[in-house]
Amino acid sequence: MSEMPVFGAGIWHFATYKDRYATEGYGPPLGLLEQIDKAGAVGDLSVVDLNWPFADFDGNLDDVKAALERNQLRAVAITPEIYNRDYVKGSITNPDPAVRAQALKLLNEATELAKELGCDYVKLWFGQDGWDYPFQVDYHDIWKLAVDGLRELVGAHPEIKFVIEYKPREPRNKIIFPNAARTLIAIQQVGLENLGILLDFGHSIYGLETPADAAQLCIDAGRLFAIDVNDNFRGWDDDMVVGSVHLVETIEFFYTLRKNNWDGVWQLDQFPFREDSVEAAKAAIRFLKALHGALDALDEQALREAQASHDALAAQRLVQDVLLSSMARMTESQDVNA
Amino acid sequence: MSEMPVFGAGIWHFATYKDRYATEGYGPPLGLLEQIDKAGAVGDLSVVDLNWPFADFDGNLDDVKAALERNQLRAVAITPEIYNRDYVKGSITNPDPAVRAQALKLLNEATELAKELGCDYVKLWFGQDGWDYPFQVDYHDIWKLAVDGLRELVGAHPEIKFVIEYKPREPRNKIIFPNAARTLIAIQQVGLENLGILLDFGHSIYGLETPADAAQLCIDAGRLFAIDVNDNFRGWDDDMVVGSVHLVETIEFFYTLRKNNWDGVWQLDQFPFREDSVEAAKAAIRFLKALHGALDALDEQALREAQASHDALAAQRLVQDVLLSSMARMTESQDVNA
Amino acid sequence: MSEMPVFGAGIWHFATYKDRYATEGYGPPLGLLEQIDKAGAVGDLSVVDLNWPFADFDGNLDDVKAALERNQLRAVAITPEIYNRDYVKGSITNPDPAVRAQALKLLNEATELAKELGCDYVKLWFGQDGWDYPFQVDYHDIWKLAVDGLRELVGAHPEIKFVIEYKPREPRNKIIFPNAARTLIAIQQVGLENLGILLDFGHSIYGLETPADAAQLCIDAGRLFAIDVNDNFRGWDDDMVVGSVHLVETIEFFYTLRKNNWDGVWQLDQFPFREDSVEAAKAAIRFLKALHGALDALDEQALREAQASHDALAAQRLVQDVLLSSMARMTESQDVNA
Amino acid sequence: MSEMPVFGAGIWHFATYKDRYATEGYGPPLGLLEQIDKAGAVGDLSVVDLNWPFADFDGNLDDVKAALERNQLRAVAITPEIYNRDYVKGSITNPDPAVRAQALKLLNEATELAKELGCDYVKLWFGQDGWDYPFQVDYHDIWKLAVDGLRELVGAHPEIKFVIEYKPREPRNKIIFPNAARTLIAIQQVGLENLGILLDFGHSIYGLETPADAAQLCIDAGRLFAIDVNDNFRGWDDDMVVGSVHLVETIEFFYTLRKNNWDGVWQLDQFPFREDSVEAAKAAIRFLKALHGALDALDEQALREAQASHDALAAQRLVQDVLLSSMARMTESQDVNA
Repeated sequence: MSEMPVFGAGIWHFATYKDRYATEGYGPPLGLLEQIDKAGAVGDLSVVDLNWPFADFDGNLDDVKAALERNQLRAVAITPEIYNRDYVKGSITNPDPAVRAQALKLLNEATELAKELGCDYVKLWFGQDGWDYPFQVDYHDIWKLAVDGLRELVGAHPEIKFVIEYKPREPRNKIIFPNAARTLIAIQQVGLENLGILLDFGHSIYGLETPADAAQLCIDAGRLFAIDVNDNFRGWDDDMVVGSVHLVETIEFFYTLRKNNWDGVWQLDQFPFREDSVEAAKAAIRFLKALHGALDALDEQALREAQASHDALAAQRLVQDVLLSSMARMTESQDVNA
Repeated sequence: MSEMPVFGAGIWHFATYKDRYATEGYGPPLGLLEQIDKAGAVGDLSVVDLNWPFADFDGNLDDVKAALERNQLRAVAITPEIYNRDYVKGSITNPDPAVRAQALKLLNEATELAKELGCDYVKLWFGQDGWDYPFQVDYHDIWKLAVDGLRELVGAHPEIKFVIEYKPREPRNKIIFPNAARTLIAIQQVGLENLGILLDFGHSIYGLETPADAAQLCIDAGRLFAIDVNDNFRGWDDDMVVGSVHLVETIEFFYTLRKNNWDGVWQLDQFPFREDSVEAAKAAIRFLKALHGALDALDEQALREAQASHDALAAQRLVQDVLLSSMARMTESQDVNA
Repeated sequence: MSEMPVFGAGIWHFATYKDRYATEGYGPPLGLLEQIDKAGAVGDLSVVDLNWPFADFDGNLDDVKAALERNQLRAVAITPEIYNRDYVKGSITNPDPAVRAQALKLLNEATELAKELGCDYVKLWFGQDGWDYPFQVDYHDIWKLAVDGLRELVGAHPEIKFVIEYKPREPRNKIIFPNAARTLIAIQQVGLENLGILLDFGHSIYGLETPADAAQLCIDAGRLFAIDVNDNFRGWDDDMVVGSVHLVETIEFFYTLRKNNWDGVWQLDQFPFREDSVEAAKAAIRFLKALHGALDALDEQALREAQASHDALAAQRLVQDVLLSSMARMTESQDVNA
Repeated sequence: MSEMPVFGAGIWHFATYKDRYATEGYGPPLGLLEQIDKAGAVGDLSVVDLNWPFADFDGNLDDVKAALERNQLRAVAITPEIYNRDYVKGSITNPDPAVRAQALKLLNEATELAKELGCDYVKLWFGQDGWDYPFQVDYHDIWKLAVDGLRELVGAHPEIKFVIEYKPREPRNKIIFPNAARTLIAIQQVGLENLGILLDFGHSIYGLETPADAAQLCIDAGRLFAIDVNDNFRGWDDDMVVGSVHLVETIEFFYTLRKNNWDGVWQLDQFPFREDSVEAAKAAIRFLKALHGALDALDEQALREAQASHDALAAQRLVQDVLLSSMARMTESQDVNA
């Protein structure tokens, strides 16, 4: 069996959540250190993505470092919270120049923290940058603000990578970076080497993309810097446990990464609103390990031949052979190892 | 011009909101009395739907009554909060009998309050009753819990009406009452005269229904007890201002109500996350008044003839004639009245 | 291993197709007898559903019977073509009484054929009954035509079953029987015992239903007379090969049938536009056999316990255990049998 | 009132249609010359887009020229039929090199015809280039074929423009050019000045874009060469009459074109399956003229101010003022002119 990938998770996977109905939260609030301990309890996670400012936390950075260390975790990324109350009408595209400046200040702070923690990248998720109503914005102007803001931020920190996590919508009805192609155009206009894409499988699938195709596009552009996985019912960003619904497209996504020798972190972006967060991460990783084994067993040569003639039935048969034996394979392999 | 309808709103229209990202809220919290004063400030609202327990409020009922009175508002309904932290895995369908009992207790309390306030109905919105994952529930069992729970509640209060507000999803990935037909089947199985439907235009349109058709179905069953209006982009319950997107289907919905002599409240269920809530209500009512005038001007006889032969082009022409002159008509009429 | 189900297919699975672009067809036309021979070539099919009038066929009924016999096939159903040029504005809901009469004549003819062939049921698919534009029809009137037409047809033939195959849309933008609940209401209003539902998995999943839940609803009403399976991307009736996309929901659907001791035909309604139709059927049945074996292996008691507490993670784990070993299991079993 | 735009239509607007159910067609076939006469009968059309090979036509080019002339029509474009039986698995991306060569031959022929007829552009619609199933194609390879094929074709004809009409899906489940951004990336990789985009409003809206935003993106890239308009229910390319559903987004789309001084043809791409095609075109143009008048009346300065602060309510109010008086305005203006 080939070497296992590095598994990671957004630290928010281990938080409790609010929404517009359960405004008191789906459970009691959990502080950052508790969240890190939960991440550690999963057992297979090596890295986490941390929000800045630290959520529900009044300790200091050393406490965070210690918590990471005792759980054998590394901070792979910082995700600055540019989607909170101050930014509900946008961060770098906010109509108010003062808010844009404030957003940039926060983004720069977060970048410094990322460097300090030795992160691989700063993650930019512009969930509040966009529009809700027809006629609300001038599309030319808002796009220019986005590209200019990115250039200012990313250009100031050539020593670290930045990724844009695109998403079709939520919380804004329309987000300014909704899909891979549109985001690549922005990246091109920014014109800096350290700006790439984080492709979230769920965002891709509910945004009408084929995730494997979107990944290939980003890879061919040299911009697939990171990925997140989860699942949904194709109509919304449900952030369900990986492998709950779209098994075939999930394995196709990871097949495409492997085929291109992409070797980044397999990272979870799940929101287990009503589930135990540690168990939800374990369930995801159990499935991902089975899938990894399936890829080891896949007859890649035969698949390449089927694809050369666009033979859907032959391709699906090859994939079913390995996917639908993947759990049996893992069980055997564990028995052997036990 | 025919008499104007009674306008109403859910009191939450005037609250500030949270979501899973802006967890601190889209603005500072507003207490219930402030919300009522905002409802009063709209000027055209006659009734409001109140949540129970009262949101962000530690005053007493007399304070609420006084606030309503000073704003010339009446409580048309009580909406019990059976979708908060205690009920995230369901209220009357919760797997835990203790939680089901607690939900019924809350529902009974809310019903007593509704009677005390002289409301027209208690609104039941089962947003947390459903499922998120394939295989999570036994569909037979959960449906039985829903029907039995409804029968117990509604049967205990024959002197007041109850309405189920159906919705396809959110916050659960799948809600147990997702559309009009399914809800009518439940109502039939409950078998009580005081249980009906609140049809939310937005829920209907993003649930793949034709709202006017769903309204007709409920009316023919004698169960259209109330309506809510708002708008969205057909993929989610965006709760935008009425008339933002689906003008034609909105006028068709109100045409169908008028044709059936349905004379209930025209009630707003909008969530103006980033807008001034009073202005958002005013914008909605301005559009609804224009639409009301358009219906007065509509050549109903000609429309009926077009529909008798399913002549879409003739029907649309008649509707465009009045809809696309509706604002001009209103302006003239106001000039005359001024 | 439990006994295999009876497999079937709509005979159109083996036709060639047209659409609005490839108006000359996706391949040369195939006559009915050739289609039947292809169905026979699949090897695992026992029954077929035949259109009436017979497509591209000028032979006689004896030819058809002989073709069925030589392929060891039985006609399980007749599907009358009430969606051709004569019926593009509806069959039993057509605004023109003469067309409604013509539709009923065709339906009665088809029913006589079904009896003659010893079919289990006549399948009613009202693809052209509905509307395309807002304001095109009077929803009360069109619904009444549908219910009255059904009552007239079904009441005239108490000795054979009829099924309505509901579908959200296509070819009409909105079809009058779009989902299970709405169709059950019609069936109830018709008030006859020999009218039930054919639940098409693909129609259900792209109509926002949970197919297993829709099946349970129909079963509890005593009206699940037949099923069709296929797959799609949730936005349209793509009629792809079973098991291409929605593996988990497909196994959940069949689990629900088994749990209720539903023992009808597992029938394919696929449109292999660009694939070899015999191979497409074989691919589907191969997957369905694996799934059938997975259900044999499923720990139903443990699943029932997980569902009793709505424990999604435990339920999914149990299902992954059997689904993701299903192909290995089948391979072993075949090795043993070989 | 500002000068009216030039109106056009795809000639297929005046054909009769087939689909996978009504395989004999929604009406008797109409020859090309009859279609041109119908286009002429609309009265407001100045240009048409013609398919090549000419549909249902065995006359010669002079007949076509004569028919155009007697109806005062000009051929604005040629749309080669690279989506017929020969190309069901793709044209320039077909896995078979011989089919790719055949497609290029047809495309070159069509281009020569376009030059001969003095067309503005050749329209490329790659409806069969894409995939249906997960794992069916190698995304890198199919994309390369598309870009290389485009470069070969477009590079050979520098004296005429080519446009790609993107579309999310249909007839393929996934089309290789699904949205504006992805298509712009292809155009960039092709690297030729005479290749641009035809933006179809309906494709844009059901592909999750904001059509006005997509138009702005294409304009800013200097690539918005043509547009088509129609309407749908956001889930499919229903090709309904303009103005049936999405009035606000339609006026926003044309506002954006006007704001950028884009002065191309306002072209109809409607499929009136069950409607009179001449009447359907008239209905669309009637609405478009009203909309044109609304844009004349719009307070652009005030709108720009509202947009500068992302004030959705103010912007919508300004638009409703002119849109919902547009038909009254047109009636007055016609009275004056009469």
